[in-house]
Amino acid sequence: MAEGIDAFVLIGGDGSFTGAMTYNEEFNFTVICIPGTIDNDIFGTSNTLGFDTALNTVVEVIDKIRDTASSHNRLFFVEVMGRDVGHIALNVGVGAGAEEILIPEENLGLERLLESLKRSKKSGKSSSIVVVAEGDKIGKSVFELKEYVEEHLPIYDVRVSVLGHMQRGGSPSCYDRVLASRMGVKAVEALIEGKTNLMVGVQNNVITFTPISKAIKGHTKIDKELIRVSDIMTT
Amino acid sequence: MAEGIDAFVLIGGDGSFTGAMTYNEEFNFTVICIPGTIDNDIFGTSNTLGFDTALNTVVEVIDKIRDTASSHNRLFFVEVMGRDVGHIALNVGVGAGAEEILIPEENLGLERLLESLKRSKKSGKSSSIVVVAEGDKIGKSVFELKEYVEEHLPIYDVRVSVLGHMQRGGSPSCYDRVLASRMGVKAVEALIEGKTNLMVGVQNNVITFTPISKAIKGHTKIDKELIRVSDIMTT
Amino acid sequence: MAEGIDAFVLIGGDGSFTGAMTYNEEFNFTVICIPGTIDNDIFGTSNTLGFDTALNTVVEVIDKIRDTASSHNRLFFVEVMGRDVGHIALNVGVGAGAEEILIPEENLGLERLLESLKRSKKSGKSSSIVVVAEGDKIGKSVFELKEYVEEHLPIYDVRVSVLGHMQRGGSPSCYDRVLASRMGVKAVEALIEGKTNLMVGVQNNVITFTPISKAIKGHTKIDKELIRVSDIMTT
Amino acid sequence: MAEGIDAFVLIGGDGSFTGAMTYNEEFNFTVICIPGTIDNDIFGTSNTLGFDTALNTVVEVIDKIRDTASSHNRLFFVEVMGRDVGHIALNVGVGAGAEEILIPEENLGLERLLESLKRSKKSGKSSSIVVVAEGDKIGKSVFELKEYVEEHLPIYDVRVSVLGHMQRGGSPSCYDRVLASRMGVKAVEALIEGKTNLMVGVQNNVITFTPISKAIKGHTKIDKELIRVSDIMTT
Repeated sequence: MAEGIDAFVLIGGDGSFTGAMTYNEEFNFTVICIPGTIDNDIFGTSNTLGFDTALNTVVEVIDKIRDTASSHNRLFFVEVMGRDVGHIALNVGVGAGAEEILIPEENLGLERLLESLKRSKKSGKSSSIVVVAEGDKIGKSVFELKEYVEEHLPIYDVRVSVLGHMQRGGSPSCYDRVLASRMGVKAVEALIEGKTNLMVGVQNNVITFTPISKAIKGHTKIDKELIRVSDIMTT
Repeated sequence: MAEGIDAFVLIGGDGSFTGAMTYNEEFNFTVICIPGTIDNDIFGTSNTLGFDTALNTVVEVIDKIRDTASSHNRLFFVEVMGRDVGHIALNVGVGAGAEEILIPEENLGLERLLESLKRSKKSGKSSSIVVVAEGDKIGKSVFELKEYVEEHLPIYDVRVSVLGHMQRGGSPSCYDRVLASRMGVKAVEALIEGKTNLMVGVQNNVITFTPISKAIKGHTKIDKELIRVSDIMTT
Repeated sequence: MAEGIDAFVLIGGDGSFTGAMTYNEEFNFTVICIPGTIDNDIFGTSNTLGFDTALNTVVEVIDKIRDTASSHNRLFFVEVMGRDVGHIALNVGVGAGAEEILIPEENLGLERLLESLKRSKKSGKSSSIVVVAEGDKIGKSVFELKEYVEEHLPIYDVRVSVLGHMQRGGSPSCYDRVLASRMGVKAVEALIEGKTNLMVGVQNNVITFTPISKAIKGHTKIDKELIRVSDIMTT
Repeated sequence: MAEGIDAFVLIGGDGSFTGAMTYNEEFNFTVICIPGTIDNDIFGTSNTLGFDTALNTVVEVIDKIRDTASSHNRLFFVEVMGRDVGHIALNVGVGAGAEEILIPEENLGLERLLESLKRSKKSGKSSSIVVVAEGDKIGKSVFELKEYVEEHLPIYDVRVSVLGHMQRGGSPSCYDRVLASRMGVKAVEALIEGKTNLMVGVQNNVITFTPISKAIKGHTKIDKELIRVSDIMTT
């Protein structure tokens, strides 16, 4: 290559990976990908870089919202990132003790939401938090959910919080730093060994390779056991 | 009083203070108030409890937004609390290096905003943050500001972030804890001395008393020098 | 049992587990254990509750030490917890970009330490951090290491920091909260199923059971791959 | 000047200021100083840059130590920075609810310390924290204090924590950022107006100038009212 560049190590998500693959196909250019996105929505790795950091950021923010929710006896719908997958919502929902968690993978239905909130109120809790993934399957925005609950369950003073881009920034957690080092070392070693078109991932805590073409086709599945835990915790 | 309560020390804002005054008038009940609100909008004290903590919370969040703004070359309108006063917006705007700060006390006008943003873009900055108080005098919400800029200054990819209630929670800063201790001691001493209907405040770092009736009538004025500093920093 | 208690769920480390086992043997009392210690030194689980939180705490503190180390061109020996195992030291060392990491599992030797520090100085780095586990195999305290380096490598201005008990406190990370929920649910289910004398653990991200007698006999092994990564990163 | 430098704006403490003054005297070079040190030990300003940030850092760490102190019923001596002045110790001591605060400005005596600790124990508190400035007037290190208390008051399990350099780093608080902006603007304006040999400070929340020669001769006095508050809080 003109500039003396022999290979790329690309850190990003689906979009960047697709670009990398095209680049490889057209110019026969060596490329190794590292999954870096807070959504954790890449196939072939249980964790993407940034995911763990984002979980801590969101849990800290919800703790702050809980402070004010408790002192005013309120219900909050908190929208977190996750258009296609509910990894952030499910983890922070359990981590922050949410009363209900709405994710793209499951349609819990509005009936269940109302039941859950009634139960929470009855149990004497001083506040309620519902965590909602952007792409929640019920298909209502947090603003529509607010209206719906105010209409059908007027016992609550409802508020909305859309966390947005703050979820993407901040100093990385130790886990993300260590994972980045492990993936980075493996990526360079892959280049040395002449590999290409692979994504470095982590599975069962072992560093692995997945063809980029496969990585961009799927998502890491939501943890069924964690859904079960969240169901038990929110009942 | 039936329950053996001789006096109240009330921590709150305008609303609670008005209630306390009424209570005092009707029942001749001794009451001392301590200003606790993140908005810093009480007359007779340069700092309300929670204000300093909220500033740190907001600056941390804007730092995180800046991370993502920079990597995507974006403009963010960030709405912070402050319906009647711009204390939070002005301080976090300067603290987080905002390109422009919109507050209830001044109408900078949309023209100046566009000029400011053009200048920021020209200077080669990789991101722009505009901090907007809820009650900004221009009278447009952050969503309307986004639309306006996208129409009149299409060089920017614009995003919006409404920080909301997270600003009210969290573990207090050292300054707020020390101030709370100082005010609390003074409030108890006031009760011992038989005082009533007063608000404990801090002015020029000295603990003072202000009649509640005066405290609820005004706001601590925005710092003109800080507006000047922010004008210089954002030019 | 007199007080109507049918079973214990005990959260703790080796010591508490041994007590629980004795209790079970003597009184035939049902007990399920959950591993809660920041040292991550329990057999039968890849993560103990508190470990991830402690890693984040320590990395944040070392980042702050790095700020001052850089501006004064200094070498810091930072002692972290880990009397028998180097999990904390190894992870935070990689996470915070330490120049060298000294752990109980390996005797790197003082020669290698000096070589590493010389190399770091030559490479033009403005600061050096050496992370030392309490039980480091070289067998010298951070104070002795400071003296040794000052004598044998007088190019450095050396400082020492013993992090101590702050590592044990703080608000838990999202990972630790989720893990605690998963373990808690499993512990209760174990009781319902009539199980006893077991420790709930997590292995390859699946919740598992290990007899308490086995859990207290060993440690989770240090990750060899991570030692390799740290060797590469610090060279 | 050869390099086209017309003036310095110097950010630092006593040492740097003395250097700046010498430089000005010998080369007749224009210099304006800004007080930047966490110790808050410069005359002519109520706040030095970094002081407020350090207070928050230390309070957060003591909160973490309190977590473990409480669960084990322990007494901690926590050493914080402050060789000549007790500003950090006094503020964080009040902020973190310390049982006793030892500073360079006052010799409380060992007798009072023992009395204070006995009282704390009797009152049923589950933990005790004593904050000690480096230059505490009693003249004993935290290690000597530990020994003394263990000998004379064996009811406590005593631990020591020396916070050290972590106090100097980290992302600045909003207050420090705003103060830095205000001081920076004033420093540049001073240069434009042809001033020299001055330190920019803040007094009663107004930006002021003090001759450097005076600034380095004294310290900002410890707040007597805050000592009184701390006495009341710790009794």
